[in-house]
Amino acid sequence: MKKISESTIRRLSKYYRSLEQLIARNTDTVSSDQLAEMDGITSAQVRKDLSFFGTFGKRGLGYNTRALKEQIGEILGLSKEWRVAIVGAGNIGKALVNYGEFRKQGFQVHLIMDSDHGKVGQTIQGLTVESTDHLPQLIKKQRIEIAIIAVPSEAAQRVADELMEAGVKAILNFAPISIKAPEGIQVKNENTAIEIEALSYFLTNQG
Amino acid sequence: MKKISESTIRRLSKYYRSLEQLIARNTDTVSSDQLAEMDGITSAQVRKDLSFFGTFGKRGLGYNTRALKEQIGEILGLSKEWRVAIVGAGNIGKALVNYGEFRKQGFQVHLIMDSDHGKVGQTIQGLTVESTDHLPQLIKKQRIEIAIIAVPSEAAQRVADELMEAGVKAILNFAPISIKAPEGIQVKNENTAIEIEALSYFLTNQG
Repeated sequence: MKKISESTIRRLSKYYRSLEQLIARNTDTVSSDQLAEMDGITSAQVRKDLSFFGTFGKRGLGYNTRALKEQIGEILGLSKEWRVAIVGAGNIGKALVNYGEFRKQGFQVHLIMDSDHGKVGQTIQGLTVESTDHLPQLIKKQRIEIAIIAVPSEAAQRVADELMEAGVKAILNFAPISIKAPEGIQVKNENTAIEIEALSYFLTNQG
Repeated sequence: MKKISESTIRRLSKYYRSLEQLIARNTDTVSSDQLAEMDGITSAQVRKDLSFFGTFGKRGLGYNTRALKEQIGEILGLSKEWRVAIVGAGNIGKALVNYGEFRKQGFQVHLIMDSDHGKVGQTIQGLTVESTDHLPQLIKKQRIEIAIIAVPSEAAQRVADELMEAGVKAILNFAPISIKAPEGIQVKNENTAIEIEALSYFLTNQG
């Protein structure tokens, strides 16, 4: 398949969620105009994105919601279960263990670790917090594919290095720094502070 | 001041964080090359971004870390305190009340609300969970400027409408749907599931 841009992948994730909502409301077909309206995107863009993967819809009839959701899920790799580890059992780490949206999409947290010996041994949603002292062994034993970093900034790059060394190829980073990674390893930064600062900029400069 | 693009604002947030790190390490000056290296951006881009706001640095001498941090903070509106409300006292809402990165940057949570009467009256970090039944009055009384939505998808647009009706001009949305808002109101979506799905796409299609 042709390489798909970051922004297309993001829009596919949005269409996927809108389709879930439509299916929950027992809607069988959807037009590109409706999907566009739901996601705040132009319908030309919706048609372009979806045509990229072959013709799903029939002109005038729209798309079958279930079939389209399944095909997008396939493209995004949501039809399999992903084995996830979380490093950092603070507030963010704990919230993510319980995050329904992850579970629903097949991201299963099998491991949570912390360097704080006061937290090691605690139970979160049936998972026992393990020590990061054993990170490499635990990552391998649990066959972790995606790791989430929820540790303070100072520790984030070191944790990332250990994770990559242990074979993790995909990292979602919640620490407010840019993680450096070699080619072939994908790092996504989830920086909530950056989003709220964009709001602060907007409020400050709206004149 | 000229209107600054979304992506420039995001990079300014990154520079701001890198400068914080440098100052913590007692580094007095920084070159655009160093900032570029820290944030994974080209140094031409760093110079371009910073020149946008007038000349901060002296050729060959680099930028004064403290002065540059202060000026970027000013631009981003971080030199004032913002009054923040959180709607939804679930895991995400709770994690955000405690989120040090918000507090440090001047985002102060003054109000947390939930529609679940079982949660109303609970205390989180010294804040009592209030009922969303009184949302408009509470938002006004607390003079809330930025609201964070951490409720399930089905409730998110309704909550957003109530917040905007009550005068909130900036919303950070954690529900996995696109919030519709009229012009003049800024909504940022923080969709963690979209980030992890981009990783899943990468792992599925890396060949």
